Amino acid sequence: MLERSSEALLQRYQQVRKASEELARPLTVEDQVIQTMPDVSPTKWHLAHTTWFFETFVLAEQLPDYKDFHPQYRYLFNSYYNAVGPQFTRAHRGQLSRPTVTNILEYRSYVDRFMVKFLSGSFSKPLPPAVVDTILLGTHHEQQHQELILTDIKHVLGSNPLLPTYKEGLVSDEIETSPLQWRTYDGGVFWFGAQEGAFLFDNESPRHQDFLQPFQLAHRPVTAGEFLSFMEDGGYQQPSHWLSDGWSTVQREQWECPLYWYKQDDQWYIFTLAGARPLSLSEPVCHVSYFEADAYARWAGARLPTEQEWEFVAREHAPQGNFVEQQLFHPANEQTYLKMKEASPSSEASPFHRLYGDVWEWTSSPYTSYPGFRPAQGAIGEYNGKFMCNQMVLRGGSCATPQDHIRPTYRNFFPPHARWQFSGLRLAK
Amino acid sequence: MLERSSEALLQRYQQVRKASEELARPLTVEDQVIQTMPDVSPTKWHLAHTTWFFETFVLAEQLPDYKDFHPQYRYLFNSYYNAVGPQFTRAHRGQLSRPTVTNILEYRSYVDRFMVKFLSGSFSKPLPPAVVDTILLGTHHEQQHQELILTDIKHVLGSNPLLPTYKEGLVSDEIETSPLQWRTYDGGVFWFGAQEGAFLFDNESPRHQDFLQPFQLAHRPVTAGEFLSFMEDGGYQQPSHWLSDGWSTVQREQWECPLYWYKQDDQWYIFTLAGARPLSLSEPVCHVSYFEADAYARWAGARLPTEQEWEFVAREHAPQGNFVEQQLFHPANEQTYLKMKEASPSSEASPFHRLYGDVWEWTSSPYTSYPGFRPAQGAIGEYNGKFMCNQMVLRGGSCATPQDHIRPTYRNFFPPHARWQFSGLRLAK
Amino acid sequence: MLERSSEALLQRYQQVRKASEELARPLTVEDQVIQTMPDVSPTKWHLAHTTWFFETFVLAEQLPDYKDFHPQYRYLFNSYYNAVGPQFTRAHRGQLSRPTVTNILEYRSYVDRFMVKFLSGSFSKPLPPAVVDTILLGTHHEQQHQELILTDIKHVLGSNPLLPTYKEGLVSDEIETSPLQWRTYDGGVFWFGAQEGAFLFDNESPRHQDFLQPFQLAHRPVTAGEFLSFMEDGGYQQPSHWLSDGWSTVQREQWECPLYWYKQDDQWYIFTLAGARPLSLSEPVCHVSYFEADAYARWAGARLPTEQEWEFVAREHAPQGNFVEQQLFHPANEQTYLKMKEASPSSEASPFHRLYGDVWEWTSSPYTSYPGFRPAQGAIGEYNGKFMCNQMVLRGGSCATPQDHIRPTYRNFFPPHARWQFSGLRLAK
Amino acid sequence: MLERSSEALLQRYQQVRKASEELARPLTVEDQVIQTMPDVSPTKWHLAHTTWFFETFVLAEQLPDYKDFHPQYRYLFNSYYNAVGPQFTRAHRGQLSRPTVTNILEYRSYVDRFMVKFLSGSFSKPLPPAVVDTILLGTHHEQQHQELILTDIKHVLGSNPLLPTYKEGLVSDEIETSPLQWRTYDGGVFWFGAQEGAFLFDNESPRHQDFLQPFQLAHRPVTAGEFLSFMEDGGYQQPSHWLSDGWSTVQREQWECPLYWYKQDDQWYIFTLAGARPLSLSEPVCHVSYFEADAYARWAGARLPTEQEWEFVAREHAPQGNFVEQQLFHPANEQTYLKMKEASPSSEASPFHRLYGDVWEWTSSPYTSYPGFRPAQGAIGEYNGKFMCNQMVLRGGSCATPQDHIRPTYRNFFPPHARWQFSGLRLAK
Repeated sequence: MLERSSEALLQRYQQVRKASEELARPLTVEDQVIQTMPDVSPTKWHLAHTTWFFETFVLAEQLPDYKDFHPQYRYLFNSYYNAVGPQFTRAHRGQLSRPTVTNILEYRSYVDRFMVKFLSGSFSKPLPPAVVDTILLGTHHEQQHQELILTDIKHVLGSNPLLPTYKEGLVSDEIETSPLQWRTYDGGVFWFGAQEGAFLFDNESPRHQDFLQPFQLAHRPVTAGEFLSFMEDGGYQQPSHWLSDGWSTVQREQWECPLYWYKQDDQWYIFTLAGARPLSLSEPVCHVSYFEADAYARWAGARLPTEQEWEFVAREHAPQGNFVEQQLFHPANEQTYLKMKEASPSSEASPFHRLYGDVWEWTSSPYTSYPGFRPAQGAIGEYNGKFMCNQMVLRGGSCATPQDHIRPTYRNFFPPHARWQFSGLRLAK
Repeated sequence: MLERSSEALLQRYQQVRKASEELARPLTVEDQVIQTMPDVSPTKWHLAHTTWFFETFVLAEQLPDYKDFHPQYRYLFNSYYNAVGPQFTRAHRGQLSRPTVTNILEYRSYVDRFMVKFLSGSFSKPLPPAVVDTILLGTHHEQQHQELILTDIKHVLGSNPLLPTYKEGLVSDEIETSPLQWRTYDGGVFWFGAQEGAFLFDNESPRHQDFLQPFQLAHRPVTAGEFLSFMEDGGYQQPSHWLSDGWSTVQREQWECPLYWYKQDDQWYIFTLAGARPLSLSEPVCHVSYFEADAYARWAGARLPTEQEWEFVAREHAPQGNFVEQQLFHPANEQTYLKMKEASPSSEASPFHRLYGDVWEWTSSPYTSYPGFRPAQGAIGEYNGKFMCNQMVLRGGSCATPQDHIRPTYRNFFPPHARWQFSGLRLAK
Repeated sequence: MLERSSEALLQRYQQVRKASEELARPLTVEDQVIQTMPDVSPTKWHLAHTTWFFETFVLAEQLPDYKDFHPQYRYLFNSYYNAVGPQFTRAHRGQLSRPTVTNILEYRSYVDRFMVKFLSGSFSKPLPPAVVDTILLGTHHEQQHQELILTDIKHVLGSNPLLPTYKEGLVSDEIETSPLQWRTYDGGVFWFGAQEGAFLFDNESPRHQDFLQPFQLAHRPVTAGEFLSFMEDGGYQQPSHWLSDGWSTVQREQWECPLYWYKQDDQWYIFTLAGARPLSLSEPVCHVSYFEADAYARWAGARLPTEQEWEFVAREHAPQGNFVEQQLFHPANEQTYLKMKEASPSSEASPFHRLYGDVWEWTSSPYTSYPGFRPAQGAIGEYNGKFMCNQMVLRGGSCATPQDHIRPTYRNFFPPHARWQFSGLRLAK
Repeated sequence: MLERSSEALLQRYQQVRKASEELARPLTVEDQVIQTMPDVSPTKWHLAHTTWFFETFVLAEQLPDYKDFHPQYRYLFNSYYNAVGPQFTRAHRGQLSRPTVTNILEYRSYVDRFMVKFLSGSFSKPLPPAVVDTILLGTHHEQQHQELILTDIKHVLGSNPLLPTYKEGLVSDEIETSPLQWRTYDGGVFWFGAQEGAFLFDNESPRHQDFLQPFQLAHRPVTAGEFLSFMEDGGYQQPSHWLSDGWSTVQREQWECPLYWYKQDDQWYIFTLAGARPLSLSEPVCHVSYFEADAYARWAGARLPTEQEWEFVAREHAPQGNFVEQQLFHPANEQTYLKMKEASPSSEASPFHRLYGDVWEWTSSPYTSYPGFRPAQGAIGEYNGKFMCNQMVLRGGSCATPQDHIRPTYRNFFPPHARWQFSGLRLAK
């Protein structure tokens, strides 16, 4: 396959590496160092850890003479791979002033030089498939961290009373949202999961059959305006809408609205990467936890789709939408969305709005292994499988996801209380 | 149906109520008051809460002149029904010296008198179906708490350095365990869940179709001896066997063996409700969490069954085995088990050992709603549905479960770290 | 000295031992088992621990053939004596249902039999002074625990929504409190601490000189009514009255009034060992922490006395007042106080009210060693000295203190946030 | 007095302000942002907070037209002055990436410009004494924060596995330490506290009489080598040496040596601001808590001096020694100390070594108010008084203290568990 040639790999490698550094460019040094909660990692950590991946799993294994850039980075920038060795405590990543941002950019250059040389040197002699797999995985891994750079820095800036702006964004007029429509599907036994061939994460495999009941899926995600109705109807005060764990969380955390919303002088505002601004009712609601998504759905007399239902629908549609390349860094409001759609005629015909991009959509499916699942061999087998517990599946990518990173079978997952990701919801029945 | 007649209801009511009090009989007053961890409730609380259920959902609703036994018991003994009102903090149940055990036995008598009168008075005039449903539910609810009385008091006694005995038990010789055999099944689309008719919990419905891959199921649960091999092979020291959350739990809690096991002078002992004794290798391993069950299965090159696989097999077999009526209060070792089987010829023919009774079997299925699930109306709708998050399904009942409480479609559920229940595992492939 | 003869010792021993059991008599078994916060110990623990003291420090050392009542009680009922061995975790004392209350009463009888025999056997042959010291210490130790039995059971009952009564008490009319008067003293160099001879705790020694500035001391403690004025003046809302640690505590614990006060329908109530009743304005304010005492004094334009000032005044007056023997178990209101005073003509002449009894009086003195202090030899040296940090001195005894346990030089001590003791304050300038 | 003229004030102001910025110069931006424990504040916070002091208490009050540099800095950089308004949570100071280091240097310049103009403008017309007091206080306040900049950055660098160097330091040979000598003093009634006149903190006043027992004081602090003997004698394993709170802390924190000591290949190392190096036995032990100082003294058969004893001795000697101006940033070893002493002939004659500088010396005195103490009026009254609880007094200054900031009556204070300051001890008897 084309994407597996050394030339294609090199090109992809360079694009992905450059994209990470571009994301950090608007930030001050100070922004890249701190950690505002245990789930958040400093930008400089993301820049280093993605580099560590190539150093550890490619260079150190493939180049007999390779010398580590620094003897302690193997420990400092290991995230959770027990098979590779001990890890620096996750919750203390923000307690390391050194290595500095400059040190880490040097680290990136150093590893990049070796990687480019390694890949260039294999133009005439194809790399073993396992090596190609690892390098491809490394680039997709880095794309995941690109999204995390954005969600984490949003938390860093959004926790600051000064509410600093990451990057000025465009402003659109507010227009009416289209009324909710339902698309109807028959059930049956169908195939799910990714086909071997193009790149896939191990958790998308093996391809397998499963049974689907007849169902209906909403043609668009729930909007901020709809979610506001839930709030105004006492949604956060009424335990009957909530899962038991959800209700405890609401009370313990004193949640009264989605993350990054706040009220001032009777007007709702939202903090975005382009700064704080009045809430736009037509944009998809974002930064809600699974608990909130599930409570909203129950209040609305509907439910969340299973990941099978979502995938069944989505595989008929190519991934197009408001991805990170649009540089909105926020779910589009209705006017912006329609303009984007016009600009991309192929997406216009879809009977669904925003299946991809804008917000990750919580499904009602706990994250478990597909029948017959086998994690990858070695340390890389720790990538996905060991998290299959107490997490829920999200689908479709967001405004912070690189477009070529997403596909219909892609499974994202977070614990049900997490809400610092760009996560929203779409209803099913 | 017979079980729904007022006569049958009255008989069942009286049997169940008596059984609870029988379970408390071997205990001192002191034993019935304390709480050794937040999950544990005092015996006297169980005795009161099950009574509260009938007072709240039957007497207060059906008898216009009913007067509460005590004005504050509605608050003190509500477990988690938000629709009924606020609840006394669960973790502080052991901080209430009053009402005393005697007060609570009076409370039970008071409510029983009214219930008996109410049921007797309806012999000639059938009760509305919804009332019958609630009373039946109340008895099954109380049977669940009978199991909890035992698991909770085991924690109370087992936390005490004096290791007191609940009730002397029989002692059997140790014999060889039968080697593990696998039973093989073809996949296909099948029906799951309980049929309307006999009593069922709402979480067993609706009956629905699902798809099963071909699979194999072990003919018996994993034994203590087999689990010991896992331990001796470094099972608790090797992160690669464990889910990520499981490994954190092992480290944080410093787990090195199942709950209630301890080593002394190089010999493994186990605390049971009949006191501490040397570990019997042929008994099913018990008091393991989902994390430990899952790690064992991975180490053994197998996996846990899904709840569908378990149910598909189990519905061919009637619930027979080592239940609470046997008064062992512990999983039987091989010799005891074989004697029990002989005594019950109908079970002898089964190709499976101990599908029911002995230990609850962890499945790999997160606890979620069946397609089309609707919780019961009103406060009783909080019974099951709101816990469908961060919990795993267990099947088959245990040595602490009343036999007529269990059935093939019965779904028990606990968080993956819980291990104070009589929980074990059976392998699948 | 008379109190050191074996006859006197035996009599004192028996009186003290009996008094402890009398205090437990009004309680149910359930009351004696639980622990409502880490500082509180169950009644049965106090009954056992005071017995452990005699078993460990007298019987086991003096009687060569003495056999422990139970091999594990040495561990279970050691409070904090590291030199004697490990201790069962203090915060888990309420997690032990066994030994039962009955077991512990048997333990007491067993030890008492040996102690009585031991003391009777020495009528003709005087005991070594060190043994006499230890036995005397044991009785004073048990008297301290008598006070704790009351303060702890008050917390147990007062934490229960049913607010049970320990013992019905007398009711007095409310009369006007006498206006505050100040007594004035010149400074100088004076002697402080206890003289050798009669029983004393090591922390009262050595007798030493210290310098006193001229000062004034209030003739009576602050009343509940005066404290209410502080509250109504926003005392708990105004940080400027408070020590920094005090203000954090107020906010973290959400303190708005003394412990055991609560407001209902615009009336202030107080929970006492005789049940809940409307607040009496003329009784000394009680169950305030050092932080609250200090804040009140600052608000009132005064300060707390040092322990030297208090002792300088008190040594002119014999300990008389509302002690545990009065069986009020609560600070007396003005009418009751005056009646008590009348009944004890010798106290009538005192220019001070309630210097002894009613409430322990917080001083501004951190608990430190006197110059030249030497803790007792051996394990008993852990009695006092090792707590000389982060605690404040209180003086004078309370309504829960045995009268013959107190003296002018007696130093009680608790951390500045503690308020479950009968602690109040007297102003100085 | 000379130091109170506007000219002197301006000179002092400029020197102090410059010194703070000099201390930050060796640091990267990253170093100045993070917070490695709640007690530590980021360097940039110290730079801003000391500026906030002048803005809030001088400029905003004295200049009618003064405009705040930034509207939210008043809130962000208030440390604990409730009278001035709410404060940003101390433990989250390291979660603020903005304002950046550059912003804060601009803030400093802005306020400096106004301060210089204000002071210059008053050369001809003397400022009111209260204003002079506040400005002087501001400079001493900033000097305290200069010490904290060093102790806090030491924690930041010392928590980093890379152990970065703040500033390369000089290396001296190791020589034998002089044997411990005792100086003997008679007791009596003496005067303590600072005389009005020169600058003093309110907690040093009022001057008052107190009584001193005869005592002996060691001629030098305890050395690292002596402390090592305590460790090798099982000091950290033997509860009898420790206060009860100290022993809990040792066990909870798993202390086995002073902060910044670590063992590698059987050799003890110490992290210093000049990097990690083998432990020097002749340097004063440093970074011990009160608990450790007190345990050491008990082990050594001695005790800590009271603050009165220390002051009584120290007021005979002028403050000379290893202060921050020496730029060692670490207690001097014996050789370095002797060289310093030679260079300062006036100190050579002292019968005491290192009374001032090197390490703060823990005293056995809880931090309380002197008799008749009155805090300063207004918000500045919160400076000292409200911390008079649960803290112990230290005396003498350290290698991180500016020399002209210290005097014999100077009272520093920290909680007994704190050890990130340059704190050591001197024995008394």
